[in-house]
Amino acid sequence: MARISESTVRRLSHYYRVLEEVQAEGKRMISSHRLAEREGITSAQVRKDLSYFGSFGRRGLGYNVDHLRDQIRAILGLERRWRVALVGAGNIGSALLAYRGFQKQGFDIVAVFDRDAARIGQRLGPHVVQDITRLSAAATGESFDIGVVATPIQAAQEVVDALVAAGVRGILNFAPRKLFVPDHVALRTVDMAMEFESLSFALTQARGPRRRRG
Amino acid sequence: MARISESTVRRLSHYYRVLEEVQAEGKRMISSHRLAEREGITSAQVRKDLSYFGSFGRRGLGYNVDHLRDQIRAILGLERRWRVALVGAGNIGSALLAYRGFQKQGFDIVAVFDRDAARIGQRLGPHVVQDITRLSAAATGESFDIGVVATPIQAAQEVVDALVAAGVRGILNFAPRKLFVPDHVALRTVDMAMEFESLSFALTQARGPRRRRG
Repeated sequence: MARISESTVRRLSHYYRVLEEVQAEGKRMISSHRLAEREGITSAQVRKDLSYFGSFGRRGLGYNVDHLRDQIRAILGLERRWRVALVGAGNIGSALLAYRGFQKQGFDIVAVFDRDAARIGQRLGPHVVQDITRLSAAATGESFDIGVVATPIQAAQEVVDALVAAGVRGILNFAPRKLFVPDHVALRTVDMAMEFESLSFALTQARGPRRRRG
Repeated sequence: MARISESTVRRLSHYYRVLEEVQAEGKRMISSHRLAEREGITSAQVRKDLSYFGSFGRRGLGYNVDHLRDQIRAILGLERRWRVALVGAGNIGSALLAYRGFQKQGFDIVAVFDRDAARIGQRLGPHVVQDITRLSAAATGESFDIGVVATPIQAAQEVVDALVAAGVRGILNFAPRKLFVPDHVALRTVDMAMEFESLSFALTQARGPRRRRG
């Protein structure tokens, strides 16, 4: 299998969701056209993406839904469960905990940490918020695969360093700051502030840029 | 001014945050190196980005912090306030409302809608949750610039259509689904599920792909 680009992985995620929906509808086959339609991309792109890992639809029949879903599920690493440590028990952290979708996908938040004395020891859903200084000790007892950073900006890099030291190999960051991790750790950032700014930029430009476009 | 790419806009957002921090520290000048360092990109990239809109640092002195911040602020459309309608008063919607950072940036959530009878009429922060069917009527009274979609997947496209009909020109979508908008409306999606899957993919590949890489 050739190296899969980040944008292909994102399309695979989309296909996976469409397949789950179509499976729930009881359908057995799906066309590349339908997979494409849902995504606003071309069916040629779908066929190219899926051919990478040896899945070829049959002309006039399309792809077998169960088989394709299982293949993508395996490629995305969703056949197993992932142990997630959440750092930051504020608004975003609480929302992530309350949202059950991630658990359905295989991502279990198994521990919650914070450094705010007012939050430590409090219950949050099924968890008791632990002192961030206990992260390393907790990680030796129950290993964490993924760390979620839902702290203020100022604390984010320090928390990332602690998570890396505790052995996580993947980090999902919600702090609007670029963070540094060693090569063996995967980092993804959800930057809502940046998305808002991208919108205000687009809306401002649409009204007429400050200077003429070159 | 040449057309600014989406990736440049994202770097401008980053520079803006660094400049705000540096400004808060009371510094008057900043080097492209410092702007780059913070972002893990090259100082050449910083200089190129900033030269697009005619801001040139002085060798040995760097950029004037206040001036550069003001320039980027104007380009990103952050000199004015934006009126935001939030649709979906669940976990994500509540977290967005509770987070004060967006308001500091200039994005005011001025109305909250939901279609769940159990939520309609309830207080959420300073707002009373309104029936989604009232969106259009509400929009004629107080115009909305941006709509935030924090609903379940199934409702998302319908909500987007309603927001577009109500006159919003930008949409921030949290539903993990590709959505369709007319050309004059800007759409950005925050897909947390996809970020998790991107991590599980990376962690699975790091452990050894299922087949040999080509």
